[in-house]
Amino acid sequence: MANLMEDKQILMIPGPTPIPQRVLRALANPAVGHRTPGFSRLLTEVTQKVKEIYRTDNDLLILTSSGTGAMEAAVSNFLNPGDKVIVMENGNFAERWIKICEAYGAIPRVVAGPWGQQAEPAALGQALAADRDKEIKAVYVTHNETSTGVTHDVRALRAVCGDHPAIFVVDSISGMAVSPLETDAWGLDVVVSGSQKAFMLPPGLAFISVSPKAWELNKGCEAPSFYLSLRAAKKNLDDKKMTPYTPAASLLVGLRESLSMMAEEGLANIQARHARNRDITRAAVRAMDLTPLADDAAASAAVTAIRRPGDIDVKKIAGIMADKYNIIIAAGQGKLEKEIFRVGHLGYIAATDILATVACLEMTLLELGWPATLGAGVAAAQRQILRG
Amino acid sequence: MANLMEDKQILMIPGPTPIPQRVLRALANPAVGHRTPGFSRLLTEVTQKVKEIYRTDNDLLILTSSGTGAMEAAVSNFLNPGDKVIVMENGNFAERWIKICEAYGAIPRVVAGPWGQQAEPAALGQALAADRDKEIKAVYVTHNETSTGVTHDVRALRAVCGDHPAIFVVDSISGMAVSPLETDAWGLDVVVSGSQKAFMLPPGLAFISVSPKAWELNKGCEAPSFYLSLRAAKKNLDDKKMTPYTPAASLLVGLRESLSMMAEEGLANIQARHARNRDITRAAVRAMDLTPLADDAAASAAVTAIRRPGDIDVKKIAGIMADKYNIIIAAGQGKLEKEIFRVGHLGYIAATDILATVACLEMTLLELGWPATLGAGVAAAQRQILRG
Repeated sequence: MANLMEDKQILMIPGPTPIPQRVLRALANPAVGHRTPGFSRLLTEVTQKVKEIYRTDNDLLILTSSGTGAMEAAVSNFLNPGDKVIVMENGNFAERWIKICEAYGAIPRVVAGPWGQQAEPAALGQALAADRDKEIKAVYVTHNETSTGVTHDVRALRAVCGDHPAIFVVDSISGMAVSPLETDAWGLDVVVSGSQKAFMLPPGLAFISVSPKAWELNKGCEAPSFYLSLRAAKKNLDDKKMTPYTPAASLLVGLRESLSMMAEEGLANIQARHARNRDITRAAVRAMDLTPLADDAAASAAVTAIRRPGDIDVKKIAGIMADKYNIIIAAGQGKLEKEIFRVGHLGYIAATDILATVACLEMTLLELGWPATLGAGVAAAQRQILRG
Repeated sequence: MANLMEDKQILMIPGPTPIPQRVLRALANPAVGHRTPGFSRLLTEVTQKVKEIYRTDNDLLILTSSGTGAMEAAVSNFLNPGDKVIVMENGNFAERWIKICEAYGAIPRVVAGPWGQQAEPAALGQALAADRDKEIKAVYVTHNETSTGVTHDVRALRAVCGDHPAIFVVDSISGMAVSPLETDAWGLDVVVSGSQKAFMLPPGLAFISVSPKAWELNKGCEAPSFYLSLRAAKKNLDDKKMTPYTPAASLLVGLRESLSMMAEEGLANIQARHARNRDITRAAVRAMDLTPLADDAAASAAVTAIRRPGDIDVKKIAGIMADKYNIIIAAGQGKLEKEIFRVGHLGYIAATDILATVACLEMTLLELGWPATLGAGVAAAQRQILRG
């Protein structure tokens, strides 16, 4: 009977996020021929609008892949085997940078920190200072770490790099448009993101910006890259306003609509809404005598990670929420798999979604033996809402 | 910016009700030719399935009109000018029976009762007993009175009519499939309902069942009736499996899907879900120190009418709920316009919708000066949900 209440499912995970009706209707348009002038106009339009959200005049390329494809492109298009890089590692998705670098034979110097805390700019500064011969080719960081609910201080991390020749690469897959990120003003060379997060689309498109400095590095890159070749993407976009291979054209039609919605709301308002939803969620979490993993200063506006209550199995929390209340939240991930559970508030989420989620989480925790006071978390969320 | 959050609107009114995605997708099918064998199969199929929900083997005719059109048909196809009828009047929609009867020159004997209470079977019995010459041609009653949140005891009202020759006519527009109604077992001659209530469709279709006894009365009816002629509808359905005039064919395609969903859930489960949602709502209302208009025994499973809190303007309650929280509830109607406000829980409504509604109603009442304890209504709703 699950599909009878399909519309009532509340998707409180850090992506994929709910897809607005307006976008669904756009996605339902007929198939698009991708070697047509109409498609070129579409690609030109959405590319420009994504650049506005990126706050960049750099090249912006749209790949038909998940965010991980763009992460791979951010490695394979710039590094050669044996190249040294730094990876700031404070979570499961930061670990992915390491794995991709290693897959291409690069040598990551991992600057690890506790999961649940922000990456330390000072630690990055020390690692770079130790690089006397300027051998480090790239620094890989994460903007919003989905696995821990932490937003890293990208601006400060970039600042300590100063004029080191390494390119600065950011995974902002779940952070883009959620929290401030100034690609050009902060000097970010490569920034990747994906369609199924704040862009309110299904998965299948990834975005990657490339600075002139990164293109310089690309010139010397001999690693194999075909489908994810940024050179090919740039050449086709510049010369023909097209993509080198078949694009997910329907998703681009949907993207045009979601970018319209984002423009109507305004980037600052989108970020403010995410911050409000974070604060509402965290107020409720604390009122339920639960502990957020991240401190307030580090707290993600996309997802709140919550420490396991007592010895309750976090998979059971997510299971009851889904089975009884049709609300999808997430257990932990990576090495925090059993230590935390996560409530997303990313994308097309309203305060009413959070109120219902908190109320159902109280009932779920009570069922699992946690001494939840029914209504207490909701009351804290209400007070936070009324505060504005 | 209202349309940006269009999906997040929670429609807590007693119709139109939320339309499930499955039904929306069915409604998005291409236009249907209504003089085709395919349409005849569609009409035959949905007619049979609506009869199952009506619990009847009587003729069931589908009109392209709102519910009021079917109410008019239930007058104009049976009465002649000067005919005497009884109307049980306990609310705004019962008053509509009087207006339609008067429009056709019939003479209603109005058995009025307090709005917010059930119609008295004994009062109906007395009115019929006074009809020594059996001149009363029809008795008009309301199953679910949307304006007061009362479900009337149709079975008891029918029972006191015994074998009086008057036909027994029921407005079950907002009651059908919400609360038990046994068209054949209870001996209901004419029953009307509409698509935008428990059938989870947009407005535009009305249903009307006609018993053999009602068809007998129809034979002597000389009132003008063309578009709403039940004889024409029956003749076209019986002879050609078609409608006499152009039907709202797309709505019938949607109806096929919503009837599939209703069959999958099961009529008893649909009614149980509505009863649960009523009980959750009423528990919350009382915990907010508010007073439902109707007693528990009379309480509608489609809509809860709540007495005005103190001297708060009920239109302001509905206004803040809509403007700040994107939740649509209703003020009063008819002579209770300013005395009550109404929270619907009709159709495609989940417990999470009610939890969010209650939380936002608490914030709204607090803003309007009512001493609401944030979370108290939600906690009562949660306890009711956990009770099952």
